[in-house]
Amino acid sequence: MLKDRIEKVKQMLNKEKTDAVLVSSVFNITYLSGFTNFSEKEREAYIFIGKDFAYIITDERYTEAIKRQVPYLTLFERGHKKSTKDLFKKHQKKIKWLGIEEDNLTVAEHKILSRHFKKIKHFDVGNLRSIKTKEEISKIEKACKIGDLAFEFILKKIENGISEKQVVEELENFIRGKGAVVSFPPIVAFGKNSSIPHHQTGDSILGPESSSGREGQIILLDFGVKYDDYCSDMTRTVFFGKPTSQQKTMYETVLQSQQKAVDFVNSATVAGKEVKAAEVDKVARDYIISRKYPAIPHSLGHGIGLEVHEHPSLSPKSKEILKEGMVFSIEPGIYLPGIGGVRIEDLLVFEKGGLRQLTHSQKKLTVI
Amino acid sequence: MLKDRIEKVKQMLNKEKTDAVLVSSVFNITYLSGFTNFSEKEREAYIFIGKDFAYIITDERYTEAIKRQVPYLTLFERGHKKSTKDLFKKHQKKIKWLGIEEDNLTVAEHKILSRHFKKIKHFDVGNLRSIKTKEEISKIEKACKIGDLAFEFILKKIENGISEKQVVEELENFIRGKGAVVSFPPIVAFGKNSSIPHHQTGDSILGPESSSGREGQIILLDFGVKYDDYCSDMTRTVFFGKPTSQQKTMYETVLQSQQKAVDFVNSATVAGKEVKAAEVDKVARDYIISRKYPAIPHSLGHGIGLEVHEHPSLSPKSKEILKEGMVFSIEPGIYLPGIGGVRIEDLLVFEKGGLRQLTHSQKKLTVI
Repeated sequence: MLKDRIEKVKQMLNKEKTDAVLVSSVFNITYLSGFTNFSEKEREAYIFIGKDFAYIITDERYTEAIKRQVPYLTLFERGHKKSTKDLFKKHQKKIKWLGIEEDNLTVAEHKILSRHFKKIKHFDVGNLRSIKTKEEISKIEKACKIGDLAFEFILKKIENGISEKQVVEELENFIRGKGAVVSFPPIVAFGKNSSIPHHQTGDSILGPESSSGREGQIILLDFGVKYDDYCSDMTRTVFFGKPTSQQKTMYETVLQSQQKAVDFVNSATVAGKEVKAAEVDKVARDYIISRKYPAIPHSLGHGIGLEVHEHPSLSPKSKEILKEGMVFSIEPGIYLPGIGGVRIEDLLVFEKGGLRQLTHSQKKLTVI
Repeated sequence: MLKDRIEKVKQMLNKEKTDAVLVSSVFNITYLSGFTNFSEKEREAYIFIGKDFAYIITDERYTEAIKRQVPYLTLFERGHKKSTKDLFKKHQKKIKWLGIEEDNLTVAEHKILSRHFKKIKHFDVGNLRSIKTKEEISKIEKACKIGDLAFEFILKKIENGISEKQVVEELENFIRGKGAVVSFPPIVAFGKNSSIPHHQTGDSILGPESSSGREGQIILLDFGVKYDDYCSDMTRTVFFGKPTSQQKTMYETVLQSQQKAVDFVNSATVAGKEVKAAEVDKVARDYIISRKYPAIPHSLGHGIGLEVHEHPSLSPKSKEILKEGMVFSIEPGIYLPGIGGVRIEDLLVFEKGGLRQLTHSQKKLTVI
């Protein structure tokens, strides 16, 4: 099955009139090789695929493991005896156009390549990852399940006097206890902090925010789980104390906006129509604006898998079409500076009949 | 003091006839701002320095913290209202030559820059980091101290039947217990595995290697600590069971080679001579070859600080000169494929009188 992925790259090369591609991003390398031990921080490997070859380039540290686990890729061991340049020299004559990952390859690496290859262009291997297999979807579901349990757990832990950082710590410990890790640093925002979509979790303390002490305080929780290399992502907004009518209306508007996006996809699917990612974004976005709230300052959603953010993008500028097997978030939000924000995010998979939700934490307005 | 670092960048710009530099590597950003919260995996900030400006470019997540902690840099908040392009447009006329970090900036980022700046070249901000302040040296010493304690601890834990991975786990837990983390994934290599300089720690079990069960088994431990953002790094090779005479000779040769490199630096310093990093490498390297062993398949040493590997490089091709305040490793090794390897690594700081060792774990041939 992993071997099929290499074939798909070759088909893509053919389609895009590119003679070979040098894959450098660690997640694309993981996707094509199934090998998960390479560092995310340092460049430890490349995959180099052409019409009649498919190499994995790495060093002696990984030789044994690669030979055992990735037999369908030809191992090129670089080291003090052989350099990657030797490999490029061997193939450069056959390669007119070389594909690279422009958003990953460094300028220094590009310089070296340009000594061997005259024509270099961007080649988006990551596109292949947007459509998930059943096995991949099931891994994402497992991560979502742990996320749901973590949400259930954290609701019981949240109490007067707790800080944002403490909530994060509790979440991280719970998730670790399930044999998983967080898929990104959790965002926990209390009160006005929630008006910053990507608030940096800090030392803010939960407690009555207004002088009367009777108003509800927003608690925005955005976190995900990484289990068996696959990620989940979910946002819930709950209230500490009774929400004001303003807060309630914000909450209901965001929830409605999300529902409208989901309904749109499902109706279109039933009608046999193609669904553009940008259209889904527009449905949710327009609804929030129609209720006199500011426009969502981020995309409506993003694909997820080996990485928290991958194809497809559900944003106004997206050119992508939703396809069966895509897994993505739908996460509208309203953010009022100085007041607070509400975001609700779920993961969904696009299937034959329409969308199926993978995160199952409850969304009824919750007061702690 | 951090402000002085910005001044040094400006002096460097002047010297290298570069009008501005866009710093993108997270460790250089940390070095120049003192701000340690940016992700190592995602691009969350840049520092943009010219003759009469010094910006830190980041998003709303970090606005508050940056304003509070880094007042001497002008905050440019990029987001859905303002893009980095606006900032480039404002300054592009004054900038003929823009410096970038070629080994960090991506091809996609370079493309955007090239729309604003005609002449772009490599600018090695990381060079500034090679000479450490007293405060930085003291932080590295603290990391070394924890590393020494971890080595003492692990010697007691190593026993028949333990796996390489278990040793790593014990090391990591011990270091975490000291409020620190490992500075890189520890390398633990048993027996023949030690002949691979950067062996990938695996499931190999400690136990009598030869059929007679009377020969010593090599245990190579290469690990470091990160404490208060600064790293340590150390390698020790010990024996499980009585070493063979071949193993003993290898061990003594490596130890001698390290000592000869240290002596060389110290003698030259006393004589008031400048010491080239490449010469130090040569002393250790030549000694090992003179004893009829294969050449060291890696550099003799590397600078260390915020990162495990930074300037200076002690390698045959290095053009660097040792200067007061530099902290680096000296780590000769002998690796015999199919037999095993020995490496001994210490961190040293180059001071007025010569080298002072920062790692203090014992190096007498140790049998467990």
